[in-house]
Amino acid sequence: MRVAVIGASGYTGLELLRILLRHPDIELTAITSERNAGRAVADVYPAFRALLDLSFEAVDPPSLAARVDAAFAALPHAASAPVVRELVKAGARVVDLSADFRLRDPATYAAWYGEHAAPELLGQAVYGIPEFHREALRTTQLVAAPGCYPTSALLPLAPFLRERCIDPGTVMVDSKSGVSGAGRKADESLLLAEMAENCRAYNVGGAHRHVPEMEEQARGLAGCEVRFSFVPQLLPAVRGIATTVFARPTRTMTTEGACALLEAAYLEEPFVRVLPPGETPSLAAVRGSNFCDVAAVVDTRTGMLVLLSALDNLVKGAGGQAVQCFNVMAGLPETRGLLEAPFVP
Amino acid sequence: MRVAVIGASGYTGLELLRILLRHPDIELTAITSERNAGRAVADVYPAFRALLDLSFEAVDPPSLAARVDAAFAALPHAASAPVVRELVKAGARVVDLSADFRLRDPATYAAWYGEHAAPELLGQAVYGIPEFHREALRTTQLVAAPGCYPTSALLPLAPFLRERCIDPGTVMVDSKSGVSGAGRKADESLLLAEMAENCRAYNVGGAHRHVPEMEEQARGLAGCEVRFSFVPQLLPAVRGIATTVFARPTRTMTTEGACALLEAAYLEEPFVRVLPPGETPSLAAVRGSNFCDVAAVVDTRTGMLVLLSALDNLVKGAGGQAVQCFNVMAGLPETRGLLEAPFVP
Amino acid sequence: MRVAVIGASGYTGLELLRILLRHPDIELTAITSERNAGRAVADVYPAFRALLDLSFEAVDPPSLAARVDAAFAALPHAASAPVVRELVKAGARVVDLSADFRLRDPATYAAWYGEHAAPELLGQAVYGIPEFHREALRTTQLVAAPGCYPTSALLPLAPFLRERCIDPGTVMVDSKSGVSGAGRKADESLLLAEMAENCRAYNVGGAHRHVPEMEEQARGLAGCEVRFSFVPQLLPAVRGIATTVFARPTRTMTTEGACALLEAAYLEEPFVRVLPPGETPSLAAVRGSNFCDVAAVVDTRTGMLVLLSALDNLVKGAGGQAVQCFNVMAGLPETRGLLEAPFVP
Amino acid sequence: MRVAVIGASGYTGLELLRILLRHPDIELTAITSERNAGRAVADVYPAFRALLDLSFEAVDPPSLAARVDAAFAALPHAASAPVVRELVKAGARVVDLSADFRLRDPATYAAWYGEHAAPELLGQAVYGIPEFHREALRTTQLVAAPGCYPTSALLPLAPFLRERCIDPGTVMVDSKSGVSGAGRKADESLLLAEMAENCRAYNVGGAHRHVPEMEEQARGLAGCEVRFSFVPQLLPAVRGIATTVFARPTRTMTTEGACALLEAAYLEEPFVRVLPPGETPSLAAVRGSNFCDVAAVVDTRTGMLVLLSALDNLVKGAGGQAVQCFNVMAGLPETRGLLEAPFVP
Repeated sequence: MRVAVIGASGYTGLELLRILLRHPDIELTAITSERNAGRAVADVYPAFRALLDLSFEAVDPPSLAARVDAAFAALPHAASAPVVRELVKAGARVVDLSADFRLRDPATYAAWYGEHAAPELLGQAVYGIPEFHREALRTTQLVAAPGCYPTSALLPLAPFLRERCIDPGTVMVDSKSGVSGAGRKADESLLLAEMAENCRAYNVGGAHRHVPEMEEQARGLAGCEVRFSFVPQLLPAVRGIATTVFARPTRTMTTEGACALLEAAYLEEPFVRVLPPGETPSLAAVRGSNFCDVAAVVDTRTGMLVLLSALDNLVKGAGGQAVQCFNVMAGLPETRGLLEAPFVP
Repeated sequence: MRVAVIGASGYTGLELLRILLRHPDIELTAITSERNAGRAVADVYPAFRALLDLSFEAVDPPSLAARVDAAFAALPHAASAPVVRELVKAGARVVDLSADFRLRDPATYAAWYGEHAAPELLGQAVYGIPEFHREALRTTQLVAAPGCYPTSALLPLAPFLRERCIDPGTVMVDSKSGVSGAGRKADESLLLAEMAENCRAYNVGGAHRHVPEMEEQARGLAGCEVRFSFVPQLLPAVRGIATTVFARPTRTMTTEGACALLEAAYLEEPFVRVLPPGETPSLAAVRGSNFCDVAAVVDTRTGMLVLLSALDNLVKGAGGQAVQCFNVMAGLPETRGLLEAPFVP
Repeated sequence: MRVAVIGASGYTGLELLRILLRHPDIELTAITSERNAGRAVADVYPAFRALLDLSFEAVDPPSLAARVDAAFAALPHAASAPVVRELVKAGARVVDLSADFRLRDPATYAAWYGEHAAPELLGQAVYGIPEFHREALRTTQLVAAPGCYPTSALLPLAPFLRERCIDPGTVMVDSKSGVSGAGRKADESLLLAEMAENCRAYNVGGAHRHVPEMEEQARGLAGCEVRFSFVPQLLPAVRGIATTVFARPTRTMTTEGACALLEAAYLEEPFVRVLPPGETPSLAAVRGSNFCDVAAVVDTRTGMLVLLSALDNLVKGAGGQAVQCFNVMAGLPETRGLLEAPFVP
Repeated sequence: MRVAVIGASGYTGLELLRILLRHPDIELTAITSERNAGRAVADVYPAFRALLDLSFEAVDPPSLAARVDAAFAALPHAASAPVVRELVKAGARVVDLSADFRLRDPATYAAWYGEHAAPELLGQAVYGIPEFHREALRTTQLVAAPGCYPTSALLPLAPFLRERCIDPGTVMVDSKSGVSGAGRKADESLLLAEMAENCRAYNVGGAHRHVPEMEEQARGLAGCEVRFSFVPQLLPAVRGIATTVFARPTRTMTTEGACALLEAAYLEEPFVRVLPPGETPSLAAVRGSNFCDVAAVVDTRTGMLVLLSALDNLVKGAGGQAVQCFNVMAGLPETRGLLEAPFVP
């Protein structure tokens, strides 16, 4: 299958290259980058020397559509929608990793991102968490790969939302992310000299753009409005998201019961690993892999449900999950190219 | 003033040496370590070469009591109480950094740590957060320096607990600590190869020994029972604790109002810096200093109060705060030796 | 092909598991660890959960020999030789990653490691750098996988040694290694709190056990005695070796000429990437991969040849190169299972 | 003494603020930054909140000269000379941390940096390593604080150069620096996501601007031309320079003899710590301090002299040494404000 990666200069694009290079059914046919157009990928990113012969090209959707069967788009939001529209029109399958097709409601999109350039596609796009939307993914032409934070919060929460056994009024989420989540951009606050040994929250108080996405998906799972109080943080690390969720159970719950609910929900899932009671996820155990590790604890003193998850923001939080969705959409085995062992140590 | 550091081989002890060396009113007279007794401090810790001429000695409370006016004890819990008892009996002022004198109630101590070796001193010890107990510290002979996590959670919470404007039923705390908090011990899980790029929670669900301490102090501040759901985490960093607190306001609250409450509470405090609305604390801005930076945000979507704090676990979370207490107890200016700029970058 | 990993609890063993799991011609049949015998690998190393069903077993060479076609031994030196002897006797192909079979001369071995337990095998073992010994590897039954430092120094040096265009009297090598090279052991000096932001040399002055190995191989390449002045250093990083070599050319040399010599030597090599003049290797560009990047510069002011290399100590420096040797020995394509893109960012 | 810091937005300027704030004889009177002029220092750098009341101002040499007794200039090279000229003319003492006054010969300056803006001052400036130029510093009005790399290489080398017991033809230096040495600038290659777990050489082959400085000072020490082959490297760390020097002894030398030579040379020096034979410097033992730790080893196999040093590039490599020079120039005790313990762990 001939595939293009559109917007491959950022960390998400690079990770897609890394994953797609080892995918046995995919042939990387085109790689675009406005900023690096004309240069060999291996010259810009020496890591890919001897592995990849392509040069970056500028985005030209009609030309791309003629040469590929599918495309992964890793463009900034707003820039993505017009490109995706042309590719979809030309018949290509598209996995879009921007925020442009994650929200069903154009008004919500407008409130967080500005006017939408291709609102007619919003109804057609499927939100790309296969654990929730596998059937819809099989038949869609357009996948909206989710944000890294929503994936990390929703996977442990989903069974409890579906069972309606937690208070949907306020779910509290504290998520710690490696700095690759902030993208590959020359920003003083992301220098090693600033972030080594550092940790800081940002966009606290309902200000982060992943909130509407989490709430929309949670509503779909719970069948009612769910509100999140979300605190994102930057870690002194490159990759990974470690998420803590506090939720109030609406019925008596034990750690064992909560773990059993997770176990039952994810028994057949290849990429969600439910930890036994007493164990906690760690970024080290998922780094570089498409796994999301989840655990549940009921606090003995307060009765609160505490959920923990760990994933690699560039893999299960971005490029890996995008390929997982692609596999489903393309009728391939869902784990194809993705059962890589975590990068330890 | 002649001072001893008892149990100076761990990270807390080392940090005390670092701080006391620059304190103008203190003469370091004795430094103990069972494991290194007889060896020059500078041979064991080359960082102190050319700065410190003393050798480690074994603990001998009567001998120490005869040679010093005060002692900082950084021994493990249970090991500390008998030594402290002898020093106190001999008339020395003591700042104890173990858990042995933090809890008022011997039964609570027994439930978390085992039987107490010197229960008669529990009533006499003052919990060492000067921002809460300054008056009592002025006249005590024994200070129980608090845990690093309780300091980071209680400083931002205190004004809200005192005003009784949050629900005491469940305060949720997610605290991320540098690995120096786990001590200087040969433990595979703390190797750089294991913890670099890692982040993981531990002792989740009411299992961490700092919980009773937080609850006892919070009860003192609020005048009622307060329950904490506490999640400690290890960061891929050496120093620092970044804490997020979620609490439900019991009356309508705005970010500005919450910040104003913090401002009013800490206006005169030299070591608590209240950030203006919209700013968030970062470990980088407090590293190496005795500051605790605090901030408040009210989540616009849920109405939840989110408090954030950052401190250096070895300074305001341990050695620095111990010296701050000592200054108060000894009638010295409270900031003496402690107004060092943070270690940036 | 059924394969065992013997001594799989350390970082080298773990990396072998990671690599072998993705090797299409290999079936992992047995994994041994004295310390973890009887426990599921995935229980001891949660990263491997859902990927690996085996349990650790104790080493029993006869039983292993009956069940596998080949074995990778990652035991400590001296412990390895007796196990390897039995496996070889039983007909298994063995790649040994200890130091036990790297030196041809039993006296040299004895001087650095003590008496050898299976000296009769020394003549039979082939030193496992395929770029130097490919033909011998095709027909051997026993491979001595080299040390990580020698690989990083010898690959850039080899063309110059072969051409006899540098002074063999003193080659100076400064090598910086990630801490995984020191192994997975509870050692205070390797804690994150000790090694973060640190860098320190050790075993300076001809004291490191990789020196005789480098000198023996260099002698083989140059046809004369070569002496190394070797300075190993620990970096505040998990993986990677960055090596600087200073050598005195014996004839006039330019940067372009030196680069051309490297280019010519490695044109057909899949895992040695020669950088163009002006570029320098970086650990980031090889991390997680089996590549060794090499570069040459002739210092304009002194005429000295400066060689630089970067490799991942656990891949091209250990497990990856071991598998590369295995592929050659087993008649498989040499790159099988090894053309993974580096782990960026 | 009223003092200004000119160009205080970079890491060197920040470190000067940190050090000067604790200097008992200095009153920080003015802080300049073009880019931040008009803003409170504590607003731009929250670490300094509650410690520093000043606002950044634009550079105006006449106004500064009227208000201060001395100035530390941390401007880029070329930008510094004109400002320094005006300050010197107005009678202020100046410690310049740029490269503008480090070289005696205007032609050498021109070859590396371009035409000099104030060549008449070159003869007047004293190179700011007090261990070499203490007497001249006592009477000068202008100090040229040296580069961080030259300090780290010259301190261990000086006794051997003075004794003329090493071959001056080629001294080989491999220096590993924390990224703060590259300055506080938005540069993608310095992001945490790029430099964490990385290590890479740059400006290899006689291309680094610190080479002429090293050679000029070495010539002064040895009384003959000395040539350096210099390889600078970036470490995945914020601070520190760890330097390895290889030099060929011109007479028989032992490790003990080499150490004794260092010991004798630095016996009275407060900031150079000579390690006993067998110990090696580590960045951790000097971080945050003005110490330079040095060690010598003679390689038993090759006879080469290997020198090792560690210092904090922002302290002994920049701001700390600048203050040390200032103390000498101002007739204060040389260690005033500088005997801070290293920042461990």
